[in-house]
Amino acid sequence: MPLLPPNHHPPFSIVRIAYVDCHATDLAVSRAFWVDTLGFVASEETPDALYLRGLEERSHHSVVLRKSPQVDVTAVGFKVYSEEDLDRAATFCASRRLAHEFVDRPFQGRTLRLSDPLGTPIELFFSMDAVPSKLRQYGEYRGARIQRIDHVNCFSPDVQASYEFFTDLGFRVSEYAAADRDDRIWSIWLHRKGNVHDIAFTNGRGPRFHHVGMWVNSVTDIIHACDVLATTGWIASMERGPGRHGLSNAFFLYLRDPDGHRVELFTSDYMTIDPDFEPTRWDLRDPQRQTLWGMPAPRSWFEEGSLFAGQPVHEAALEAQPIVAPW
Amino acid sequence: MPLLPPNHHPPFSIVRIAYVDCHATDLAVSRAFWVDTLGFVASEETPDALYLRGLEERSHHSVVLRKSPQVDVTAVGFKVYSEEDLDRAATFCASRRLAHEFVDRPFQGRTLRLSDPLGTPIELFFSMDAVPSKLRQYGEYRGARIQRIDHVNCFSPDVQASYEFFTDLGFRVSEYAAADRDDRIWSIWLHRKGNVHDIAFTNGRGPRFHHVGMWVNSVTDIIHACDVLATTGWIASMERGPGRHGLSNAFFLYLRDPDGHRVELFTSDYMTIDPDFEPTRWDLRDPQRQTLWGMPAPRSWFEEGSLFAGQPVHEAALEAQPIVAPW
Amino acid sequence: MPLLPPNHHPPFSIVRIAYVDCHATDLAVSRAFWVDTLGFVASEETPDALYLRGLEERSHHSVVLRKSPQVDVTAVGFKVYSEEDLDRAATFCASRRLAHEFVDRPFQGRTLRLSDPLGTPIELFFSMDAVPSKLRQYGEYRGARIQRIDHVNCFSPDVQASYEFFTDLGFRVSEYAAADRDDRIWSIWLHRKGNVHDIAFTNGRGPRFHHVGMWVNSVTDIIHACDVLATTGWIASMERGPGRHGLSNAFFLYLRDPDGHRVELFTSDYMTIDPDFEPTRWDLRDPQRQTLWGMPAPRSWFEEGSLFAGQPVHEAALEAQPIVAPW
Amino acid sequence: MPLLPPNHHPPFSIVRIAYVDCHATDLAVSRAFWVDTLGFVASEETPDALYLRGLEERSHHSVVLRKSPQVDVTAVGFKVYSEEDLDRAATFCASRRLAHEFVDRPFQGRTLRLSDPLGTPIELFFSMDAVPSKLRQYGEYRGARIQRIDHVNCFSPDVQASYEFFTDLGFRVSEYAAADRDDRIWSIWLHRKGNVHDIAFTNGRGPRFHHVGMWVNSVTDIIHACDVLATTGWIASMERGPGRHGLSNAFFLYLRDPDGHRVELFTSDYMTIDPDFEPTRWDLRDPQRQTLWGMPAPRSWFEEGSLFAGQPVHEAALEAQPIVAPW
Repeated sequence: MPLLPPNHHPPFSIVRIAYVDCHATDLAVSRAFWVDTLGFVASEETPDALYLRGLEERSHHSVVLRKSPQVDVTAVGFKVYSEEDLDRAATFCASRRLAHEFVDRPFQGRTLRLSDPLGTPIELFFSMDAVPSKLRQYGEYRGARIQRIDHVNCFSPDVQASYEFFTDLGFRVSEYAAADRDDRIWSIWLHRKGNVHDIAFTNGRGPRFHHVGMWVNSVTDIIHACDVLATTGWIASMERGPGRHGLSNAFFLYLRDPDGHRVELFTSDYMTIDPDFEPTRWDLRDPQRQTLWGMPAPRSWFEEGSLFAGQPVHEAALEAQPIVAPW
Repeated sequence: MPLLPPNHHPPFSIVRIAYVDCHATDLAVSRAFWVDTLGFVASEETPDALYLRGLEERSHHSVVLRKSPQVDVTAVGFKVYSEEDLDRAATFCASRRLAHEFVDRPFQGRTLRLSDPLGTPIELFFSMDAVPSKLRQYGEYRGARIQRIDHVNCFSPDVQASYEFFTDLGFRVSEYAAADRDDRIWSIWLHRKGNVHDIAFTNGRGPRFHHVGMWVNSVTDIIHACDVLATTGWIASMERGPGRHGLSNAFFLYLRDPDGHRVELFTSDYMTIDPDFEPTRWDLRDPQRQTLWGMPAPRSWFEEGSLFAGQPVHEAALEAQPIVAPW
Repeated sequence: MPLLPPNHHPPFSIVRIAYVDCHATDLAVSRAFWVDTLGFVASEETPDALYLRGLEERSHHSVVLRKSPQVDVTAVGFKVYSEEDLDRAATFCASRRLAHEFVDRPFQGRTLRLSDPLGTPIELFFSMDAVPSKLRQYGEYRGARIQRIDHVNCFSPDVQASYEFFTDLGFRVSEYAAADRDDRIWSIWLHRKGNVHDIAFTNGRGPRFHHVGMWVNSVTDIIHACDVLATTGWIASMERGPGRHGLSNAFFLYLRDPDGHRVELFTSDYMTIDPDFEPTRWDLRDPQRQTLWGMPAPRSWFEEGSLFAGQPVHEAALEAQPIVAPW
Repeated sequence: MPLLPPNHHPPFSIVRIAYVDCHATDLAVSRAFWVDTLGFVASEETPDALYLRGLEERSHHSVVLRKSPQVDVTAVGFKVYSEEDLDRAATFCASRRLAHEFVDRPFQGRTLRLSDPLGTPIELFFSMDAVPSKLRQYGEYRGARIQRIDHVNCFSPDVQASYEFFTDLGFRVSEYAAADRDDRIWSIWLHRKGNVHDIAFTNGRGPRFHHVGMWVNSVTDIIHACDVLATTGWIASMERGPGRHGLSNAFFLYLRDPDGHRVELFTSDYMTIDPDFEPTRWDLRDPQRQTLWGMPAPRSWFEEGSLFAGQPVHEAALEAQPIVAPW
């Protein structure tokens, strides 16, 4: 199937991915992982929630962990360009008959919660409490020296449908992988902010959450994170990598938090801001797509993901199989 | 003077800084510096011109050197969002009575050349010949492993006027420095693409060209470039740094090419894409503004710059003085 | 079995590991790998041999590849402290009834060739032709920016016997791995020059050559080597890593050259020069011994190695098994 | 003056530089600098003394700060090969009529204190309390991630005399700088452990202490230390660098502690262990000797140093002047 033309005039304007909001069973354990080990900044800690951000970020939170006996993800959040964009988004949802409502979220202004056609829970907001950037507070750098949220990645049971919906919202394609025969899209990387992605979709039982990707400054920060994780009791959290993806060119490390939520440490992708940017196509079976070098990904990486709260899951549309490590 | 509100509806849409076009006296010597030493990719070499790009870039050129007995800069080039934006730009220039004309530029589509109110020569284009990205051709990485153009920096005799004009064009402020008393703007960093800058202006005799900033991946790439330059006969090209700016947080190295054109190797700034981003104000006399640590800049860095071809120069409006090294 | 006391008064004085001398089937292909890709310096190239060194080295060669239809390793070479030490070594060999003879080696002074009690072919020399160090010739740095030979690692069918012999020669233990029950030594790291090793022995069919370890300056040099290898046709040469060993703390990458000879890129071990240095004991089944983090080593890494020319191989004394990756 | 032949049979055997013992006026402030900012490990803290070591070190201390109203250095300490070497050293001192005595030092075994012929206070010991290496405790890495002591550097009023004395003790030359005319030695780098130096001497009023050099793993650790120092109130401690020396090839940063004691963060020198190693000669006026690239050293770096406790200072023998920055 050919790629769609970009929609340069979307019904409302999304700026960028902004947060993921998760449930966690034990916030003290979560804090030990995210803050003490990885180096996130804690913007707010209550008995019920932990609001985290990267060192560079000036918005209150990019990862939220809320205490709950059930482990799932409640939403992925995007920042829009203005308050008016929220109203335009509500109008759009109504016209598409998508479930939506304005909800209260601490430290945020008006927030529109909606489900995309596949059931992915999305929250849109314009304003969030400002906090000081720690960018130049080098004395507080720890662990992986997390800078900022870069993207989220989700399983979709119908990647083509997810792609069409986000194209309508003005997202553009940077790279994608297609299965051999019929050229059907297996996975796709979509952006608003001008680098490789704000959100990506991979074929699989879904909708489910695959990971949140956090930007770090350098390869050496990721290697140091490996050294720290391996010697402070978190070696079991290291699921895949470090290595370099062919797709996106990113140097990566995938981790599982104490509840199994997946986080990627990520650096060195590239700029995609040109409106006439030509997406890169990869063959699903090209071994260097997933891993330019290094070990193939373990089966868990392909199959496991966090559920979205209250959202039933459907089988994937495609059956093609990527290359999986034998364990 | 207070900052201006951003213009979210500019008369035409600029995507990003795209190139600088310079005159050079000896292209073989220029090639030895830019390609063999710094690691630029040569997209095209003729007896009269050298077209260069960074490893990541998919557009034909981001630095052009044209043979000429006279050493100056002919234009800084910006990519616009569509062909229609070029026509809108021409209409805008006519309405402002700014000199403008469509010109032919090799490897580019329609190109509008104009002078901003201070006389800075600007070229706008939408299409440029596509070339393969060398991002994943690691075997071709050399020298500083230059990735892409990031910004240009110009002297303006009236920074306030330059700021007002580029604000009208939809540029937004990331950081600025103001003199003590009257809060007049000494220098300002303006962007379209969502990082610290596409163009910056510094108070000084002008309009003149200060430097082109090239993005590199890491601190280690810049240190290796120092080692290479110092041991291959180019030590005199090293004008300032390496060091870290307070302003922009960038790790930098400033070089002078064989004709004196200044190029900055630059890494690790931050994202500014949020429409409600609050610019950072620096006091002109804050020593950590220019140099978070390291030696102060030499006098040449404050005073010297390339002329724009055929453009007379005016004295600067402000007399405030930053901190200068004693040589 | 307890460790032996160091011998502070060996019969002759070895300074350090100095070279490995290998057979190769196609020197042009070998050159493409070692010189063009990894960044070794070619000290001498003839139709019959390729003499290589690291950027820092001032001795003529640390890796020698000689054309031969048969692929094996002819010797590992050590530098001794003086010419007199060669004569003392010959006397020592005679007293131990070890086969030995003085041989001619190009670019070297007098060279004593001997077999250790397990059959490992060893060459000792004092003088080798001096060549200029490329340490400060940064313009010639390529690939992994190989600095110098650091160590060799060999399979021994009787590690205890190898350990006893090299202890007699004044080598000291930095680290070792022992099997659970009877505390028998599975592998041992032995040094003369004051870092983790000049030579190591691992239990296995032998004597065989496992790898030569080359020192590089940094983690980033190894990651860049991965990127280069993966995109210039050498991905099949990447056998294991990158990763960090628990044992030695080294950050490593193991490669197989076009003939299957194994080379390790290696950085960041530590100083062991104190005469009262206490060796570190690892349990054979401690998973962090081999790999502080990352994937377990593939089976080939445990089982495959280069034969020593003309030297029959014996089965290993121990049957304990380390942790092996499932492929 | 020609270089002396190495003494391969010294009267007693020194292994390596081991510590510097300093007076400090306020241990809380010293701790904030050395431990909290630079990342030294505190082995012992009492109201009267602070015993520090690097992350890799297994000996109790490599820097000792003792509370005193007077700021000076009480000794530089070397580890010898055995207890017997201490007695041989005492015999040697007696034969040379050098002041010497056995003294008590906490956490050390027998310690011989002596003055070299220029008055430099030296302590020799064989045994020191063992402590756990923090090499693999990556969670405790902070600041510059200091690994181990590498060398000390002292002013000598007669470098030729210092050189002759340390040559008698078995030290070997790696590099030296000589003044133009008469080839007299201006500064000299001497080692026992096989890298560029354990101790160096520079022409100047003396004997005085110039600096202690601490090994760190990488350029990025030093740049991060700059970022931390500049943003935690310690910018005034940054005296010189970062930069690369021509001499030694080291990447360096020089700091002044709260009492003015100078410490160098240092990485990437090279191996000098070969007994036939040919020292490198630099001309005193070669600008790349001191600084391969970067700013020249400030005057303070050439002129200031810590006094040795109770030791009068003499004018320097040579008057030649190196290149000094104009401030």
